[in-house]
Amino acid sequence: VGNVKQALSAELASKLVDAAMAKAEEIGVPMCIAVVDDGGNPKALLRMDGSPLVAIEVSSDKAYTCAAQGITTEMLAGVIEKDPPLTVSVPASPRITPVPGGFPITVEGELVGGLGISGGYYTDDVKVGEAAIAAIS
Amino acid sequence: VGNVKQALSAELASKLVDAAMAKAEEIGVPMCIAVVDDGGNPKALLRMDGSPLVAIEVSSDKAYTCAAQGITTEMLAGVIEKDPPLTVSVPASPRITPVPGGFPITVEGELVGGLGISGGYYTDDVKVGEAAIAAIS
Amino acid sequence: VGNVKQALSAELASKLVDAAMAKAEEIGVPMCIAVVDDGGNPKALLRMDGSPLVAIEVSSDKAYTCAAQGITTEMLAGVIEKDPPLTVSVPASPRITPVPGGFPITVEGELVGGLGISGGYYTDDVKVGEAAIAAIS
Amino acid sequence: VGNVKQALSAELASKLVDAAMAKAEEIGVPMCIAVVDDGGNPKALLRMDGSPLVAIEVSSDKAYTCAAQGITTEMLAGVIEKDPPLTVSVPASPRITPVPGGFPITVEGELVGGLGISGGYYTDDVKVGEAAIAAIS
Repeated sequence: VGNVKQALSAELASKLVDAAMAKAEEIGVPMCIAVVDDGGNPKALLRMDGSPLVAIEVSSDKAYTCAAQGITTEMLAGVIEKDPPLTVSVPASPRITPVPGGFPITVEGELVGGLGISGGYYTDDVKVGEAAIAAIS
Repeated sequence: VGNVKQALSAELASKLVDAAMAKAEEIGVPMCIAVVDDGGNPKALLRMDGSPLVAIEVSSDKAYTCAAQGITTEMLAGVIEKDPPLTVSVPASPRITPVPGGFPITVEGELVGGLGISGGYYTDDVKVGEAAIAAIS
Repeated sequence: VGNVKQALSAELASKLVDAAMAKAEEIGVPMCIAVVDDGGNPKALLRMDGSPLVAIEVSSDKAYTCAAQGITTEMLAGVIEKDPPLTVSVPASPRITPVPGGFPITVEGELVGGLGISGGYYTDDVKVGEAAIAAIS
Repeated sequence: VGNVKQALSAELASKLVDAAMAKAEEIGVPMCIAVVDDGGNPKALLRMDGSPLVAIEVSSDKAYTCAAQGITTEMLAGVIEKDPPLTVSVPASPRITPVPGGFPITVEGELVGGLGISGGYYTDDVKVGEAAIAAIS
């Protein structure tokens, strides 16, 4: 029983998508919203009408990055900035991105996946992601 | 003016996902549901709890196949069976699959994308996909 | 001077595309037309309106196959049918296809590239490709 | 019917290719010219005689970038320059390039695809692309 882990449910993933969509509509910027589980594998995705094509890849990479590292992509950006080896290695890793708009998803303090938002300038992406995370806290 | 085309909305994609989920719950088989647009790019995805990991790739490939060819994957299977060159070529194409459970999505008779269902034996996948397509007709 | 080779010009590639388009319009089946050079690299491509998405990949693979082997894809289909090892190996080769509609392009008897046609049932593809090859002979 | 959208026709794509070719001949630099649609999928390509092999990939990536983001690759370069997270993430994205010579294609103000030019120094590529975009405006 020591090996039980919290898991990201489809219900939680859908709540994140719905809350992100509501905030994106409020600020008027169509987003692509991606949710991955603790294995880094897609759990839910929704691309709003008018969201740019590139947002599929970027939102998915942000979600993966946070499931893979347990911190926001914005925190990763801060870490990289002061650290030459990371400045070199991160661009070489095709799915790890330091662009703000990625958030770890936790349940009872345990990392269960990642949320990635892309579609606007990344300050918009962050607003939408923060609203989604707040909605499940 | 001849170049205006119908487009797959996020609203329609969400209706397909919801209807597929309802049918999957009814038959008791958790599915991964993938929707792509006319360019073969992801529009929506939901992986139900308990759906196998492989269902992500299979549902996505089924959706892509139908957006790319305009027929169900079951019809493609029928075409291939009687046709040696296709029997050879289709397995070599990484995203084209003849496994039943993929459906073209049309709006006003125009192809706007593809729906892919995976998670059960493919006869189950077909039931779920048919219910979803019926829900938007 | 012994190493001079015939080369596929952009002019010849454009003639092939134009002749293929004219035949496709005549039979009323929109095609994707792909031309590769002797290195198997893209020289010209045109996707007619209404041609299915999958035709991009299929026409490109047909063109590559013919530049790589010097025979039509239809001939390759005939060769494979009678030859078990090839029946196994060809599907494992991602860019080699035996689906009819691919033609070698020759100048003064020398192989300079491949033409691939896809968009209809492959008997249509063959009609269009034959008309294009005839136009430059 | 808010879901009807403009589409890139083969006729428009061919006009872009022809106008780009004319300008490339005028400045004496052979180019590879790539056009993709709103889904980022190839619509037309022509590699002029003497254009370097690498221009196929570069022109295709420029075209994809602009269809995926809706701005020129030159604008993207400007955005990245001042923004550390993007400086790190863009090189990691295999098809997104900030090298000038990529242009969004719009019809009635709607993004329908991307044009990519490669073959010379990128200031030449820009001249050729601008001439092509002007020819359809």
